[in-house]
Amino acid sequence: MPRIDGRRPDELRPITFTPDFLTHPTASVLIDCGKTKVLTAATFVNNVPGWMKTQQRPGGWITCEYGMLPAATGERTKREAVSGKQGGRTVEIQRLIGRSLRMGADLTQMGERTLFLDCDVINADGGTRCASITAASLASALAFRRSAAAGAPSPFRELVAAISVGIVDGATVLDLCYEEDSNAEVDMNVVMSESGKIIEIQGTAEKAPFDRNRLNELLNFAEFGIKRIFQMQREALLRAK
Amino acid sequence: MPRIDGRRPDELRPITFTPDFLTHPTASVLIDCGKTKVLTAATFVNNVPGWMKTQQRPGGWITCEYGMLPAATGERTKREAVSGKQGGRTVEIQRLIGRSLRMGADLTQMGERTLFLDCDVINADGGTRCASITAASLASALAFRRSAAAGAPSPFRELVAAISVGIVDGATVLDLCYEEDSNAEVDMNVVMSESGKIIEIQGTAEKAPFDRNRLNELLNFAEFGIKRIFQMQREALLRAK
Amino acid sequence: MPRIDGRRPDELRPITFTPDFLTHPTASVLIDCGKTKVLTAATFVNNVPGWMKTQQRPGGWITCEYGMLPAATGERTKREAVSGKQGGRTVEIQRLIGRSLRMGADLTQMGERTLFLDCDVINADGGTRCASITAASLASALAFRRSAAAGAPSPFRELVAAISVGIVDGATVLDLCYEEDSNAEVDMNVVMSESGKIIEIQGTAEKAPFDRNRLNELLNFAEFGIKRIFQMQREALLRAK
Amino acid sequence: MPRIDGRRPDELRPITFTPDFLTHPTASVLIDCGKTKVLTAATFVNNVPGWMKTQQRPGGWITCEYGMLPAATGERTKREAVSGKQGGRTVEIQRLIGRSLRMGADLTQMGERTLFLDCDVINADGGTRCASITAASLASALAFRRSAAAGAPSPFRELVAAISVGIVDGATVLDLCYEEDSNAEVDMNVVMSESGKIIEIQGTAEKAPFDRNRLNELLNFAEFGIKRIFQMQREALLRAK
Amino acid sequence: MPRIDGRRPDELRPITFTPDFLTHPTASVLIDCGKTKVLTAATFVNNVPGWMKTQQRPGGWITCEYGMLPAATGERTKREAVSGKQGGRTVEIQRLIGRSLRMGADLTQMGERTLFLDCDVINADGGTRCASITAASLASALAFRRSAAAGAPSPFRELVAAISVGIVDGATVLDLCYEEDSNAEVDMNVVMSESGKIIEIQGTAEKAPFDRNRLNELLNFAEFGIKRIFQMQREALLRAK
Amino acid sequence: MPRIDGRRPDELRPITFTPDFLTHPTASVLIDCGKTKVLTAATFVNNVPGWMKTQQRPGGWITCEYGMLPAATGERTKREAVSGKQGGRTVEIQRLIGRSLRMGADLTQMGERTLFLDCDVINADGGTRCASITAASLASALAFRRSAAAGAPSPFRELVAAISVGIVDGATVLDLCYEEDSNAEVDMNVVMSESGKIIEIQGTAEKAPFDRNRLNELLNFAEFGIKRIFQMQREALLRAK
Repeated sequence: MPRIDGRRPDELRPITFTPDFLTHPTASVLIDCGKTKVLTAATFVNNVPGWMKTQQRPGGWITCEYGMLPAATGERTKREAVSGKQGGRTVEIQRLIGRSLRMGADLTQMGERTLFLDCDVINADGGTRCASITAASLASALAFRRSAAAGAPSPFRELVAAISVGIVDGATVLDLCYEEDSNAEVDMNVVMSESGKIIEIQGTAEKAPFDRNRLNELLNFAEFGIKRIFQMQREALLRAK
Repeated sequence: MPRIDGRRPDELRPITFTPDFLTHPTASVLIDCGKTKVLTAATFVNNVPGWMKTQQRPGGWITCEYGMLPAATGERTKREAVSGKQGGRTVEIQRLIGRSLRMGADLTQMGERTLFLDCDVINADGGTRCASITAASLASALAFRRSAAAGAPSPFRELVAAISVGIVDGATVLDLCYEEDSNAEVDMNVVMSESGKIIEIQGTAEKAPFDRNRLNELLNFAEFGIKRIFQMQREALLRAK
Repeated sequence: MPRIDGRRPDELRPITFTPDFLTHPTASVLIDCGKTKVLTAATFVNNVPGWMKTQQRPGGWITCEYGMLPAATGERTKREAVSGKQGGRTVEIQRLIGRSLRMGADLTQMGERTLFLDCDVINADGGTRCASITAASLASALAFRRSAAAGAPSPFRELVAAISVGIVDGATVLDLCYEEDSNAEVDMNVVMSESGKIIEIQGTAEKAPFDRNRLNELLNFAEFGIKRIFQMQREALLRAK
Repeated sequence: MPRIDGRRPDELRPITFTPDFLTHPTASVLIDCGKTKVLTAATFVNNVPGWMKTQQRPGGWITCEYGMLPAATGERTKREAVSGKQGGRTVEIQRLIGRSLRMGADLTQMGERTLFLDCDVINADGGTRCASITAASLASALAFRRSAAAGAPSPFRELVAAISVGIVDGATVLDLCYEEDSNAEVDMNVVMSESGKIIEIQGTAEKAPFDRNRLNELLNFAEFGIKRIFQMQREALLRAK
Repeated sequence: MPRIDGRRPDELRPITFTPDFLTHPTASVLIDCGKTKVLTAATFVNNVPGWMKTQQRPGGWITCEYGMLPAATGERTKREAVSGKQGGRTVEIQRLIGRSLRMGADLTQMGERTLFLDCDVINADGGTRCASITAASLASALAFRRSAAAGAPSPFRELVAAISVGIVDGATVLDLCYEEDSNAEVDMNVVMSESGKIIEIQGTAEKAPFDRNRLNELLNFAEFGIKRIFQMQREALLRAK
Repeated sequence: MPRIDGRRPDELRPITFTPDFLTHPTASVLIDCGKTKVLTAATFVNNVPGWMKTQQRPGGWITCEYGMLPAATGERTKREAVSGKQGGRTVEIQRLIGRSLRMGADLTQMGERTLFLDCDVINADGGTRCASITAASLASALAFRRSAAAGAPSPFRELVAAISVGIVDGATVLDLCYEEDSNAEVDMNVVMSESGKIIEIQGTAEKAPFDRNRLNELLNFAEFGIKRIFQMQREALLRAK
């Protein structure tokens, strides 16, 4: 059975990286992944969170804030600044992105700075958290490169990328669009390091539990897709200033 | 004395309109005005605010929400969804935009609908509220045209546009960039209708009060700039679907 | 056509200033302006806002908080302390009052202090923001005089006053009461300095845009009214301790 | 040992009631009790709280909201609308006032209405909760009388009044001013009905526990003071429209 | 007329203290009082509230936070962390508990520490605030004893206990269960010291005011019950480590 | 290398289930898992969330709220009702629990009801989210059994259980205590159905990414532990009313 947008089961949507879409932050990357469009920005702040000082933990910190513009979705989403708090889904996602990106750097080699990764979804068609991680990793790499060129320490270790996989109508598929995602039996997000290891795996049975064989198939698809993404990140990194 | 970016006193920054940057809302317009970049979206919701029902006020409503991405500014701005409320400046601006846009339509001819105008500043370099009004007016015009094509009533009356003027180092200037704005003696925003009348005027002495003569000069500059903007809006309206 | 309360188009409502209605603050002024009744208080706090310290900006600060008692209006207003935040209108007004009053003083000559201006509407019948500015300026002048008598620096420059003007049923009128205000085609608030210059002008087309001639007529009315108010402020200043 | 303001131990401060200080609510009473000044307003709303509907409880409801203007106290108090919530003391007081006033009426005879009692402290010098109860009871009586004159049901049963008593420097005293209150060993508020019974008694050992004999002495003082207050309320009720 | 659960008018429900139900705090006591079950914990924090520093007030502080699990009540209670604030009843209760417990210690002899008393209602059947005070006093005594054994100063003065009394169907009763409490004409909570004095008395006419004779009878019942509770606290203190 | 508490790598901590610890909810289960103690309650509410009505989605809903008492942790945790919102970790956990438990029931067969699962951590020593899922599943099973006995539809499908696994000092271990958890290189929570399938898998590299072999080993440990837990749940289900 063909996918709703005609892709093969293991086919990624087209990905484009537009570095430096913004003029102010140290680095920014606009990622287009099919119709999903996320703007990520990497900004250094010369300070660390209060708990690091309390615990006398040396080095720096990487943190993420995630948001979605109200008009990014099919039905207009209520603006979180108006409802007065970030929703549960938002909090869950930004914690995932922050954790994932911290694995790509050696925080103890970062100096007493915080790197803010702002991931704002401009247009949503599924896979926004994975697109955020992939683009934010590229923005981080650029920010660390530029900050190192200016004499600051460089804690960069390796790139990080993420992709969704899932089971839709019984079939294992890679990089689900919104239509697929909202009907999936199983939805899984996988974050990996350039060295081929797992940083985070979050798999959820939305309609029916799944067995170990299916889990392995899902991971095979994810690995296949993420390898291709690392190539595109590397090319973008070469082209950017 | 030349302006910081080399413009003549009565010279606008280059303006570009990119309609339909987004896939979901009825209409959207990305405006570039120098380095200022605002994404505006017009979305219909089949409902009106509670107070209209209570007051049994017929017709529809137009409302605006304004936001600024944290990385849009020179120093990273705290995310309002995190601090838990919209700041005073945000509230002030979105009320201005909403009022201005309501003057461009006959709300009684709108049907029982609300038009949400989301204005999100992607990159800020001064003049974001005026750019928002100008782009949101274009997005509204497109949204009403498309909705009318689909059989809904069209309350559209005329386009609305806005520009800032001010006194910088003693000289009257048009369309202030951030650098000029933060050093201005007087800062004024003018919203006008295509028919050449004033919809809103907000002038503030930031450093020194000003007299009636200066007020007239400021208004002359604003009228001159806004006329040019109406031409650009009209061209964009012709080109768009 | 006569005005609803029988006044001439350019006639102010009766104004009374009651200084020292309160026992605790450095100065306080209760203003009665027709049926509108606003209690303003000027209190020094030996501290400046955090951002002034961060920016190492010398001198002091003047800030305003505005509120309205629930029973001050025709229909009971929800208490903002209960709803958990200040509404948009409140925020807009208190920012206007603060900006206006700062123009009446030389903040650099103020010492490291903040002057809080609390403006609380006890009874509302239109024009509360203008009455607040006028009374708060008087309270500030008294507070600076008393604080200077006690040896503190005096940053006082000049008095500030405000009045509303508008177009009601096609006619230009001065100092609108609530009934007029809620039916006005155009509503404008003008803040001026004793030296006869404009500090803030905010004009809004509520029902129909207006042209430059009308704007000039509105400003003539405002100037006429504000001159009369400055006389009354001066008399109150002479009478007060 | 004489009291700080020269009063005898069982002497009330001078009390003045100013009915109809406001133009909008059904009734309002400004009470001056020494330097304490509280503005109370009684407003009917044609609705009852949601829980009454859920429980299908017949009749109406009386509720109170209490507030204190920032400049009402010696040191400026933070505005609750700015801090985003009512403080614990405020909540405790408004619940006490509401409970007390509900005992003065037969809610089942009230019709499906809510009576809002807004008690706003304009100037504070101790005893604000008792002054609020005393003035709000008068305002309620007026509101019920006027509403009955207009044909609505009248649930009024009897007046309610309150006074503070306490132990200061070992002596039992009536109607504590702020200075006495902040040094009291024991602080007690007593609310009574015109029929001479106790509606609420709240006694707190601030510095040392007290025995039953002392409790009786405190209650004797309270009864003595409250009887005098009921006379003044009755006189005010006769004079008012 | 017999009581709903067959008790005599002056009969307490069975009380059990389970010390050290928790592993982390310095001391904890689970109290069972009939079906009411409250978990109290006493935790030292090496800091004092900001206002004590500002006022340069020496010694330590004792404070209380009260909560109720959603499933503790007959109808599920909304979780306060979800609704975003503590309700009025919660605030009122935790202020009462804190005040009461502070009377059992000499804060000036406490060192610069704060003792947090967390009182969380696990299961509710009336009398939760009194059970909280009684158990928190026991937990405090244990915490001070252990902290003194470790060399810290001991500010402990005496035990504190509380009980409810009320008028139900015209009869004076001791220790009301929920069913009685929700139908009581008068509801009173009394907090006393081991030395037999009153620390706090809060009596409320829920349905009808009461006279001085009835007040004395209520206090006799309370004294009788509290004496019995002090014996049980003392026994528990002896048994505990 | 032995584990900190002497367990074998694949050894669970002792687990005890205490059903009906509470008197009000349909079912409640207190779980002790080593020193971790979580109180779970299952309460039916005859209503469904607003979005289900909007989407006209038939059947019922299962939702979870998670909380932690302040004294449950080594260092006292700030009470979320006081800080005014649920923290990110809390939100993440309660969403996980809700999703997991919904897989154990057929919501379409549930009738128009919501089952609230309150999971409150009384004492914390690692593994609180897994203990919550395991106990809440037991409470749900009891609640559905009792509600079915009373004639309501029974949507129960199968039990759900969860356990943590991780890599500590290079070794794969089952059921981490707090000490292990805070030093783990990898931390993984696995939720499975009684039928042996995966409902949710969340693995996070806290210190170093891990490969597919390690993932399989972690899953083997989890499967082994969860099978043992299902036996204990079944026994508790047999014993309970």
